[in-house]
Amino acid sequence: MGKRINLMSLIVQKYGGTSVGTVERIEAVADRVVKSYQCGNQVVVAVSAMSGETNRLIGLANEINESPDLREMDVLVSTGEQVTIALVCMALQKRGIEARSYTGGQVKILTDNVHGKARIKEIDAHRMQTDLKAGRVVVVAGFQGIDDEGNITTLGRGGSDTTAVALAAALNADECQIYTDVDGVYTTDPRVVPDARRLDQITFEEMLEMASQGSKILQIRSVEFAGKYSVPLRVMSSFIEGPGTLISLEDNDQMEQPVVSGIAFNRDEAKLTIRGIPDQPGVAYKVLGAISQANIEIDVIVQNVAKDNSATITFTVHRAALKQAEALLKEIAVDLGAIEVDSDDRIAKISIVGVGMRSHAGVAAQMFEALANEGINIQLITTSEIKITVVIEERYLELAVRALHSGFNLSDDKAAEG
Amino acid sequence: MGKRINLMSLIVQKYGGTSVGTVERIEAVADRVVKSYQCGNQVVVAVSAMSGETNRLIGLANEINESPDLREMDVLVSTGEQVTIALVCMALQKRGIEARSYTGGQVKILTDNVHGKARIKEIDAHRMQTDLKAGRVVVVAGFQGIDDEGNITTLGRGGSDTTAVALAAALNADECQIYTDVDGVYTTDPRVVPDARRLDQITFEEMLEMASQGSKILQIRSVEFAGKYSVPLRVMSSFIEGPGTLISLEDNDQMEQPVVSGIAFNRDEAKLTIRGIPDQPGVAYKVLGAISQANIEIDVIVQNVAKDNSATITFTVHRAALKQAEALLKEIAVDLGAIEVDSDDRIAKISIVGVGMRSHAGVAAQMFEALANEGINIQLITTSEIKITVVIEERYLELAVRALHSGFNLSDDKAAEG
Repeated sequence: MGKRINLMSLIVQKYGGTSVGTVERIEAVADRVVKSYQCGNQVVVAVSAMSGETNRLIGLANEINESPDLREMDVLVSTGEQVTIALVCMALQKRGIEARSYTGGQVKILTDNVHGKARIKEIDAHRMQTDLKAGRVVVVAGFQGIDDEGNITTLGRGGSDTTAVALAAALNADECQIYTDVDGVYTTDPRVVPDARRLDQITFEEMLEMASQGSKILQIRSVEFAGKYSVPLRVMSSFIEGPGTLISLEDNDQMEQPVVSGIAFNRDEAKLTIRGIPDQPGVAYKVLGAISQANIEIDVIVQNVAKDNSATITFTVHRAALKQAEALLKEIAVDLGAIEVDSDDRIAKISIVGVGMRSHAGVAAQMFEALANEGINIQLITTSEIKITVVIEERYLELAVRALHSGFNLSDDKAAEG
Repeated sequence: MGKRINLMSLIVQKYGGTSVGTVERIEAVADRVVKSYQCGNQVVVAVSAMSGETNRLIGLANEINESPDLREMDVLVSTGEQVTIALVCMALQKRGIEARSYTGGQVKILTDNVHGKARIKEIDAHRMQTDLKAGRVVVVAGFQGIDDEGNITTLGRGGSDTTAVALAAALNADECQIYTDVDGVYTTDPRVVPDARRLDQITFEEMLEMASQGSKILQIRSVEFAGKYSVPLRVMSSFIEGPGTLISLEDNDQMEQPVVSGIAFNRDEAKLTIRGIPDQPGVAYKVLGAISQANIEIDVIVQNVAKDNSATITFTVHRAALKQAEALLKEIAVDLGAIEVDSDDRIAKISIVGVGMRSHAGVAAQMFEALANEGINIQLITTSEIKITVVIEERYLELAVRALHSGFNLSDDKAAEG
């Protein structure tokens, strides 16, 4: 204490259900925590329920009641993480490390009262800080909190990531490490592009764009949360040693920002088009409002006006919602006097993502060229500041991803400079 | 509300691990609770972990650490009851009853900080009362509480009985019903005396004397607790309908108290005798103090002084502790200049219990006569106000219990009037 020259860092580590799925894996988690602790760090650990446990509990509930009360569901499933925190502490104590476990309620992870998907409002860091000062490792149950009245709440599936980030923010931690079954964020899915490359670093915005496109490494909420509170987030593997991928604010060490950081894609969506709507103010609202009111989520939206002033609106929905959306859209078409409705569920969506493209012209052209060279027709295009998305025929998906990955030189250590 | 002429009663019901051991049994518990609720009662339910669950959790802990930290052990095992409270609430809600579950911490069952065997200091009844007034059934996790610092504590095995009694005391309940796998307290063990009779009523003192003798129906602590706070306690079966046995204060409805209420026995003990100790003040302390300091529990103690003024002390210990106690006693014998030490582990202890014997002479004589008629030699005798205990050769145990059961007419509806 005090003599150490290296700065002592405060690290929050989060281990998911697979990482704590058996007693052996819990022992391995304890080894990792000890290693970080012995490097002189203060360590707070957030854990999920042992894999399978949450489903076992839900199964018990469903045997009794197919639509159980959400308050009681939270009381039930929150026991999963409580078991893990105790076991992790015991494993740490066996290694001679002082450790103390806390449920969400015990460290006052205060949430709203929306059972099953509560949002964190505040955390009382005092007790954890006392433990850390005393040299203890603190182990907190992820995924859970309490509302103003002391009722147990849960943050919804994957909420342990959010817990870890919230703890890191409340404790002003130096880094929040999310241990998972992949060793970082890749330029694209390695199953499609074998020479996809692990990114050392990525910005919060890029990660959000990647995550929403199907890179299911982190819960989007936790990335938003980390960005909001500027908590450096690192995705690491529980099973393989390595530096993982650091997700942080834009102003990182790299002098030159690569233009494109990664390629995200999915094939979960279907496309709907309503054509020949007499154009008038409020047309988009009339079409899309009715779809939203039916609780169908809409992703890409493109609207154009033809020469005859009639409008065409195209949008994508989840494939499972296609039939329902199509039926609704046909009713709307009659109301609005539109000419026709058609749909297509054999589509795929591909995005290139990178904060670097903000300051680089010609990125879109480069993307379209790469696709054209493979003879791939683009059905829809939408753009945001750090992302360009196209919709193409599904059967060209892998081809397109590989073409873009090599077109932007993502396999190289130095990514495309634009 | 208010129109009802029948008095609304507040009932606390406790269901043990076997009673909630499966989803089907939890459904049956819900049926019982609903029945009581629909009779116009306010109902608070205290439950244990599903049978097997606590052992499963302890097993996980022991895989990691053979002597796990007691604080973490409490965090771990307290999840067992938390699962049950949620499932019981779901089963009640399915039956259209509003129900709300609480962990020990949520209803502020405040205990000392002795993890694994904490004692309850106070309970905040406010929140439960609000629920009861709103027509809700309240379901509380047994066996657990929190200490002053909000750490989770447990009351030790069987502590759910104590929780139920403490809840009944805090809520000023009309009755605390302990549901178990027997349908009441019997005059003696029906496996030994087939015509043993279920007692309609028994006093706290009698129950304590019976319980400490091996009638393992209720935790002794919970009976003491119920007596202290005058909470009427009823032992009932979870599986068979019936009135069970009411345990209450002495001043009950019966005009005539039976002399003997029941016969308790055990064969877990062994007998040690140290003979020929030169009698002097402090001899008993020197002998028994050394045994106690070795954490060996002593049960019956008898001391006599012989004609030559040398003392003989005989006492019983648990059979498992006999070897250790005997070795210690031999050392003590040398120190004190005693003549000899001997031991016998083929003994049994039998007690007749009844508050009625206070005012009746000749009960002891009647007991000894019944044994003499069967040719059973009595090795030791000790008496208390409401109990007479003898130690005999183990092989005569069943014979002795049956002789006493019939000698005091315990099989009849009206027990012996003395």
